[in-house]
Amino acid sequence: MLYLIGLGLGDAKDITVKGLEVVKRCSRVYLEAYTSVLTVGKEALEEFYGRKLILADREEVEQKADNILKDADLSDVAFLVVGDPFGATTHSDLVLRAAKRGIPYRVIHNASIMNAVGCCGLQLYKFGETVSIVFWTDTWRPESFFDKVKKNRESGMHTLCLLDIKVKEQSLENLIKGRKIYEPPQYMSVNQAAQQLLEIVQNQRIRGEEPAITEETLCVGLARVGAEDQKIAAGTLQQMCTVDLGGPLHSLIITGGSMHPLEIEMLSLFPMPEDSSESQSIDGL
Amino acid sequence: MLYLIGLGLGDAKDITVKGLEVVKRCSRVYLEAYTSVLTVGKEALEEFYGRKLILADREEVEQKADNILKDADLSDVAFLVVGDPFGATTHSDLVLRAAKRGIPYRVIHNASIMNAVGCCGLQLYKFGETVSIVFWTDTWRPESFFDKVKKNRESGMHTLCLLDIKVKEQSLENLIKGRKIYEPPQYMSVNQAAQQLLEIVQNQRIRGEEPAITEETLCVGLARVGAEDQKIAAGTLQQMCTVDLGGPLHSLIITGGSMHPLEIEMLSLFPMPEDSSESQSIDGL
Repeated sequence: MLYLIGLGLGDAKDITVKGLEVVKRCSRVYLEAYTSVLTVGKEALEEFYGRKLILADREEVEQKADNILKDADLSDVAFLVVGDPFGATTHSDLVLRAAKRGIPYRVIHNASIMNAVGCCGLQLYKFGETVSIVFWTDTWRPESFFDKVKKNRESGMHTLCLLDIKVKEQSLENLIKGRKIYEPPQYMSVNQAAQQLLEIVQNQRIRGEEPAITEETLCVGLARVGAEDQKIAAGTLQQMCTVDLGGPLHSLIITGGSMHPLEIEMLSLFPMPEDSSESQSIDGL
Repeated sequence: MLYLIGLGLGDAKDITVKGLEVVKRCSRVYLEAYTSVLTVGKEALEEFYGRKLILADREEVEQKADNILKDADLSDVAFLVVGDPFGATTHSDLVLRAAKRGIPYRVIHNASIMNAVGCCGLQLYKFGETVSIVFWTDTWRPESFFDKVKKNRESGMHTLCLLDIKVKEQSLENLIKGRKIYEPPQYMSVNQAAQQLLEIVQNQRIRGEEPAITEETLCVGLARVGAEDQKIAAGTLQQMCTVDLGGPLHSLIITGGSMHPLEIEMLSLFPMPEDSSESQSIDGL
């Protein structure tokens, strides 16, 4: 049996009891290590599970999936995914390969950012299409995702923006020269995402288009959702450019404009950190 | 501290390790028992957790929230929710009441149907606004949610339909007479939801409108997602009227029309049960 097991969003203890039991008894346990990360690393998971984990990078999963599936019809193999196994489409591919080989599979679900964002108080059913914001380079600065934000806002829907992760990527030079030297991991911050969004807004203005959002659009920045040190801040897109939410992973929500009173009240629990420190210093006078 | 703890979607062992630790040490543990159910009841949870649970019905949570929050500033109180705590808006209200009273709270996330539907292979980011389908009565047959299905399909987005649950509801007669006698719980099946949808389609045709979906629209019926005996079947809306998916809870997806090849391939893993029994009997010839 192939088990696809979600690890949830925080640390080692966010695995389900059922998931942990399966991990402990599988013959091999893979850890998918390129679509998301927990607040703890592989070693902390190994210690908590009492099992050695095999890191599975993108190449392993997409091109060497047969290694993962080897003998999974005879013994149990676990494939661990941060969040829920079906957050990333790449894992459908693994399921399909298993099915083609007659290997049975089971999914042990867990929280993913797709549902855990509800913790900020915005209502889950009012989210439109989720978008991904990728790191811009000097030559590749895609803006097409912005159409989806526009469409969502026209329907009064919030947009969850998943922010880019670069893990085990090679520089262009190393790629060309075939050197297996990898760049340090990069995780897009809410600041970077907001700055890219504002640049798109500026570009649209230059082209005479009316942008779907402005500097003043209400957004929510989220960091390390589900972890003890989770941070959430509601504020304008402009404020998102500078808010300090700490380490990865970050996500950004662009609100849909019209809000339910309960949503507004919930967001008021998450003021910008600058505001709270100001009010603290006033309180302390 | 008030802990809002998601129980996930299957049985007692779908709680996270972190959630279980908190449940074991809290002074009082409430089980929210009206927005969703697991495949096991309160007793099975109590046995697995080693704790007595206090059932919290809608009245308790919405009108007597102070009971739940009592002394939560002095000791730890857990509030257990099937799925993830922020699937239902009613729990935002509990958080806001806690915040107003200066009671700190924490959320321990888990899978909800909102992300676990990804297991059928439809890509999560391609879901539009989620809708709820309620039980029709002789006099109350709301169709307004259908506009959202239409809007989603116009954008090529799938629609997750959450199906009605009636727990601890009084008949009109008992309500009027003030008798606290409750009807047996009712859970809408995929069959009932599909039949109501087809009636809306017929009504629209009678009114000369062009319905956003037809008898032939590709849908996915899901039952007991996350449980061992989970059932998923992809087929037409017409087929959804009769497919046998077994006990609750059920959910229905109306696909968005345009599909990614990987989505189509994944759905082919979930043929209609009739088809599979036919092909089995052919194989057995």
